[in-house]
Amino acid sequence: MAIMNTQLGTWLMLEHALTHNFDVEVVTQQTIDTRHRYSYADMAKRTYQLMNALDSLGLERGERVGTLAWNNYRHLECYFAVPCTERILHTLNARLSPEDLAYIINDAEDRVIFAEPELVEALEKISNQIPSVQLVVVMGDDSNLPKSGSFQMVSYESLIAPHKEDYPYREIDENTPAGLCYTSGTTGQPKGALYTHRSTYLHAMGCGSAAGMSIGPSDAVLPVVPMFHANAWGMVYAAVSVGAKLVFAYPHLHPESFVRLLRDEEVTISAGVPTVWIQVAEELSRSQIKLPNLREIVSGGSQPPKPLIARYRDEFNIPIIQAWGMTETSPLASTARPKHHLRSLPKDELLDKVYSQGGIPLPGITISLRGDDGAEVPADGQHMGNLFVKGAWVIDSYFKGKGKDSFSSDGYFATGDVAIKNSEGYFVIADRTKDLVKSGGEWISSVAMEGAIMGMEQVAEAAVVAVPDEKWQERPVACIVPKPGCNITLEEVREHLIKEGFPKWQLPDRVEIIDAVPRTSVGKFDKKVLRSRITN
Amino acid sequence: MAIMNTQLGTWLMLEHALTHNFDVEVVTQQTIDTRHRYSYADMAKRTYQLMNALDSLGLERGERVGTLAWNNYRHLECYFAVPCTERILHTLNARLSPEDLAYIINDAEDRVIFAEPELVEALEKISNQIPSVQLVVVMGDDSNLPKSGSFQMVSYESLIAPHKEDYPYREIDENTPAGLCYTSGTTGQPKGALYTHRSTYLHAMGCGSAAGMSIGPSDAVLPVVPMFHANAWGMVYAAVSVGAKLVFAYPHLHPESFVRLLRDEEVTISAGVPTVWIQVAEELSRSQIKLPNLREIVSGGSQPPKPLIARYRDEFNIPIIQAWGMTETSPLASTARPKHHLRSLPKDELLDKVYSQGGIPLPGITISLRGDDGAEVPADGQHMGNLFVKGAWVIDSYFKGKGKDSFSSDGYFATGDVAIKNSEGYFVIADRTKDLVKSGGEWISSVAMEGAIMGMEQVAEAAVVAVPDEKWQERPVACIVPKPGCNITLEEVREHLIKEGFPKWQLPDRVEIIDAVPRTSVGKFDKKVLRSRITN
Repeated sequence: MAIMNTQLGTWLMLEHALTHNFDVEVVTQQTIDTRHRYSYADMAKRTYQLMNALDSLGLERGERVGTLAWNNYRHLECYFAVPCTERILHTLNARLSPEDLAYIINDAEDRVIFAEPELVEALEKISNQIPSVQLVVVMGDDSNLPKSGSFQMVSYESLIAPHKEDYPYREIDENTPAGLCYTSGTTGQPKGALYTHRSTYLHAMGCGSAAGMSIGPSDAVLPVVPMFHANAWGMVYAAVSVGAKLVFAYPHLHPESFVRLLRDEEVTISAGVPTVWIQVAEELSRSQIKLPNLREIVSGGSQPPKPLIARYRDEFNIPIIQAWGMTETSPLASTARPKHHLRSLPKDELLDKVYSQGGIPLPGITISLRGDDGAEVPADGQHMGNLFVKGAWVIDSYFKGKGKDSFSSDGYFATGDVAIKNSEGYFVIADRTKDLVKSGGEWISSVAMEGAIMGMEQVAEAAVVAVPDEKWQERPVACIVPKPGCNITLEEVREHLIKEGFPKWQLPDRVEIIDAVPRTSVGKFDKKVLRSRITN
Repeated sequence: MAIMNTQLGTWLMLEHALTHNFDVEVVTQQTIDTRHRYSYADMAKRTYQLMNALDSLGLERGERVGTLAWNNYRHLECYFAVPCTERILHTLNARLSPEDLAYIINDAEDRVIFAEPELVEALEKISNQIPSVQLVVVMGDDSNLPKSGSFQMVSYESLIAPHKEDYPYREIDENTPAGLCYTSGTTGQPKGALYTHRSTYLHAMGCGSAAGMSIGPSDAVLPVVPMFHANAWGMVYAAVSVGAKLVFAYPHLHPESFVRLLRDEEVTISAGVPTVWIQVAEELSRSQIKLPNLREIVSGGSQPPKPLIARYRDEFNIPIIQAWGMTETSPLASTARPKHHLRSLPKDELLDKVYSQGGIPLPGITISLRGDDGAEVPADGQHMGNLFVKGAWVIDSYFKGKGKDSFSSDGYFATGDVAIKNSEGYFVIADRTKDLVKSGGEWISSVAMEGAIMGMEQVAEAAVVAVPDEKWQERPVACIVPKPGCNITLEEVREHLIKEGFPKWQLPDRVEIIDAVPRTSVGKFDKKVLRSRITN
């Protein structure tokens, strides 16, 4: 009644790719030396086969279908076949503990799980705890099938082979659920975030937009971030939507082969956690390989050290753009790109200005920083506030109604982060609320302090945690992983922090030298573990 | 019940600009020498004032509010204030004939029209034909008010001055109408295309996407295309959505001052019809001004001559990207950007490949090319088909139910264009159906022939039209505007076309030398006029 009634969702993306970008390639690195390649036309045909196969399994509309899989073309086919047949794509994180894996499979009630051959074992270990699972589809052909096991199994290729390469277009209400991801559960049990066709589409548009990752038809996109981790930050759906070439790397990071892949496939944009980019920098230095096509790297998950960003800028001429989001926000919610009037600042000043895991929300997303009294804190680069977020791809509840207290009465999601907003509108994550150091009634941002310490030449990694203190309530302790062969003292850390502008009362009273920072299943610093380790 | 219920629309854009991009500038060139500038924070405050003023005028929800205005900050405020108060922004084309202007105002039943001081006269001329109009708001302050006239008048500044600078947020159903544009009406009466909040938002996202114009926070956007012409191709809403700087040029193209504006404001992207870029090229050559910030020009409305694109590429290092759309498609529906695997072709080969007013549809838009039998024609660069389009910002009917025969039973809009699709999926507009030359049962594309003739050194402009022919039904006639001091013969034209690969039977039998190609109110070649001129 004015505008065509177009239901947003995965069908729209798949049909567009087949109709208009049929000739664009999808490349999967299968071993360190071999690559699989096919076109979007091939992808669509196999996806239709899989859709027919899913129907033949008797799965209901709205059922969750699990995947325990790496980034590759078969997982890509699942990304479309499951939601396009009105089922829910439930991506399982391959790095979960057995307990969490069992908990999540039970909560989602998965009956069918698509699993990589090398990940079937993780399911075997918990086979007696996941009674709902009736079939495991092994991502490969019959040669990849395990000899025996506790589950009924079929290979992916055998499953789809008998089925037709087409499937009738189906109009799906855009508010139908399409995907399910669980939070990492560092506090309490993991909770499910359920995405709809509409939110998946709008998130892909946000991710692909020039305010997000600017993914267009001329791009070759390599998501290092796993497809089992919050939709690979939206890059997969965004690439298919615009007909960008998709490149999937070998799942176990092998910097040499990874850099060759970036070069050979003329990758233009890639995204992943900071750790990846640290290793890639070393390899680029060592090999002297140039990547003139790589126009941008997006870094998310945690704040990359400032010297790393400067190194990519100066040594490799590649900008690193910081992005922020959470499972609850699909996840991509904001990026730190220079506004037009900041673009021409001297390079270090610019880096200072936009150095923020946070930045400016994408169109469609709004954030609010609130003091404990609920009032908006000023955008002055000083005041910390609790970070609230709302928007077109933010959940309004958890799967099965859990975690109700995370949603405000005025329609925001309470992130559990504390952030600061500067006078140009950029926000910076200061801390997880529970990781904030509360000293003498004032808050100290552990994230800012870690970032500064990681800027020291001798430091490989650093995490700052609070320890109880009789006088001040809490005081910060710096846990430091020195670079090989380096030493570091408390005095050096304090001096460096003073140079970086930290006030005296915030300086740590203690440095702990550690071998590695413990991490969660999604690669974030696990401060709960660290804290208990240094206080015991 | 999963994802937050976010209604897409102009409120979302306005709130985002105020909350997150409050410091970004909007610049309006008011005279050849003076510029007005303010921030998005100022813009939002004045927009709220205007919203309160509109309420005070007693306009109903859903009423059309006319604008007869140039590209400037007041028109920008109308772009938000009218739809954010649930009224419909009805942009009137300042280049319409008095008859069409009266027809359209009556059809839309505008009671209030916002008009530039210099355009009030156009309304005066038809004052006795537009009884619905009760108030004309003159875009300026009281000094701009005409001494007397047929209408009740108030200046824009006086209208908003008494009102408050804030306005309570209002949740508007995204399917509510937001804007109304009329087709140019080269065939029959103009018809209204009604856009919704949702379509306006999705179109802005499409326009801003990297498949569209790739508009991000680091951009300064200068829409040369008028805001009265099909939403300035979506650039205004896209810029506000992502917090790009907006720059509005003086409405009467003055190449010298325009080029200075591009340079001074560090404009990164601009868009308009080919004629503009022809004049700007001359000025860039003459002045030797460099525009290192201008990363891209988007050209639409008609096909730019290939030598113009090559000139910008080689002489100024600025890519010209072709875009296609119609009032019925909001308008931006497709762009001709190189796919990743075509990027590295030799430059002239690349230009040949993507030289198409058409290209690849934006995500959310699908096209279909159908023979007269309704079957899809092959994508072989040879077969012509009738162009059908559907998608999230394509109308499904005209205002007041007119033109029902333009919509297919399977949900497409019949564009009235004929197009060809090549083997990489790019489509090229061959012609308007009614302008196609039908010779001996075969179709000849006048657009392709015009493009080729405009590639000749002696030619300023060229239009090819059909004339009746006893033997062949129709034959093409080339109407040519030579460059000053140049001559051109039929023989030269035929030789050139043979070199460009046209088969002999398509070559024109006649050349007409003309002073200028007649144009419609939106700047397209008016072939109806031309045809009647040369057949009489």
